Amino acid sequence: MIATGGIGVFDSGIGGLTVFKALRRALPASERLIYLGDTARVPYGTKSDETVVRYALEGAAFLGRHGIKALVVACNTMSAVAVPALTRAHPFPIVGVIGPGAEVACHVTRSRVIGVIGTAATIKSQAYTRAIACHLPDARVTGRACPLFVPLAEEGWVDNDVARLVAREYLGDLRGGGLDTLVLGCTHYPLLKQVIGEAVGDGVTLVDSAEATAAVVRDRLRERGLLAPEGGGTAGRGADAGPPGDGDHFFVTDSSERFREVGSRFLGAPVARLELIDIAE
Amino acid sequence: MIATGGIGVFDSGIGGLTVFKALRRALPASERLIYLGDTARVPYGTKSDETVVRYALEGAAFLGRHGIKALVVACNTMSAVAVPALTRAHPFPIVGVIGPGAEVACHVTRSRVIGVIGTAATIKSQAYTRAIACHLPDARVTGRACPLFVPLAEEGWVDNDVARLVAREYLGDLRGGGLDTLVLGCTHYPLLKQVIGEAVGDGVTLVDSAEATAAVVRDRLRERGLLAPEGGGTAGRGADAGPPGDGDHFFVTDSSERFREVGSRFLGAPVARLELIDIAE
Repeated sequence: MIATGGIGVFDSGIGGLTVFKALRRALPASERLIYLGDTARVPYGTKSDETVVRYALEGAAFLGRHGIKALVVACNTMSAVAVPALTRAHPFPIVGVIGPGAEVACHVTRSRVIGVIGTAATIKSQAYTRAIACHLPDARVTGRACPLFVPLAEEGWVDNDVARLVAREYLGDLRGGGLDTLVLGCTHYPLLKQVIGEAVGDGVTLVDSAEATAAVVRDRLRERGLLAPEGGGTAGRGADAGPPGDGDHFFVTDSSERFREVGSRFLGAPVARLELIDIAE
Repeated sequence: MIATGGIGVFDSGIGGLTVFKALRRALPASERLIYLGDTARVPYGTKSDETVVRYALEGAAFLGRHGIKALVVACNTMSAVAVPALTRAHPFPIVGVIGPGAEVACHVTRSRVIGVIGTAATIKSQAYTRAIACHLPDARVTGRACPLFVPLAEEGWVDNDVARLVAREYLGDLRGGGLDTLVLGCTHYPLLKQVIGEAVGDGVTLVDSAEATAAVVRDRLRERGLLAPEGGGTAGRGADAGPPGDGDHFFVTDSSERFREVGSRFLGAPVARLELIDIAE
């Protein structure tokens, strides 16, 4: 039986659009995505676990009222601290980005020395370290909070001297020591891939959780018989498919103007059907 | 008649502590300050006017329920967009930081070429430009949004190569052209005074609204007969007085841990009597 509900994609703001894009590529075109960006309260990554859990429950309840059949937690911080609370609160499957990202890192590494970069909250939670230990108990994991990467990405300074210097400051000392894999544990970081790669040096594979998460979502839906029909699916949209589909909907909690502008940069396409909502209503 | 209520000091987060400190220096020791930092929803400066006004009204209502006799809006963004709405909603005097800062800039400038730096929302509002025009209609005002300064200050990177490069990137082209005065239109920016000064060059006076605002608050309270008795007042606390007084109280909307840590850096003293609240209650 195919459920008729859409798939909720929940992020603290704009960054989750990288996950949205990966989902759009991985899922049949007939699958409907409902994106919620809590732009009125972004960022989550500098806030306490209690506050992040509260915001996560409020956002998931809003998406639940829209009859979603699955929830993708696109925000690393929320995935790191709120997935257990969300799973207790809702009957639909919930997929965060930490597990899929960690699994890919474990497949990729040869040296078993893995770096993880993210917000202060994500790194403090040690969620990646625990998830990696499930697959590779003897891996050595170094976490590093990089709070300036998010504002740099939002400013569009992703490839200038400032970005390069910040990346060197945060990551320069990870060079050597056998590190061969670095998890980009925040949805904004793929935009800074270039300078991050330069800072850690050649031979380090950067892992972006977005693709891995999209694949897990597809498999999970298929297992449960929840995936929309493949007919006229991804193949028909070409390998570069990623822009919003016809049935997709975007909700934000702060004025849509900035989301529309910055969002189209993330998405590489205009953001259609965008609606301002009060999450508490 | 002396009112018994305290003075509310409202900021989006931690930065308003620079205004708190200036008030503590300018006011009698017996004056009680009640600080509210909306740390669960910080920052305001990247958000829309509608959202900032809504948050401002909620925070002021909370402080109003604590029986304050006056409200100091320590946040530049809130001062720029929400003071009219706050004034309509409350009977007590409300003082923002824009007017006092603009007035000082007009006193200081000789060339009548004034720069203003602040968050995206503050600069977009043109509130400083309008306030300066009231005093110096022929002044030439250049506004510049500097979104990375806040995360830099919160990261504690105020005097390193990154801070210097960011300041040069934002402000380098303000050199020359006759600019002799620069308003630091965000409470975080005084922490970056050194690198901002280097970027704009010698001979440019940096105006910090905190001191000017504190003086206006003192005068306004005195005019209305609302100032606490001077006996054992500021003089007794020495010129460096600034740490919290015995009756002061701090409220935050996100967990107090980070506020306590970063706040003591802003305040140069431990943050006592700190309480976590839900602003909507």
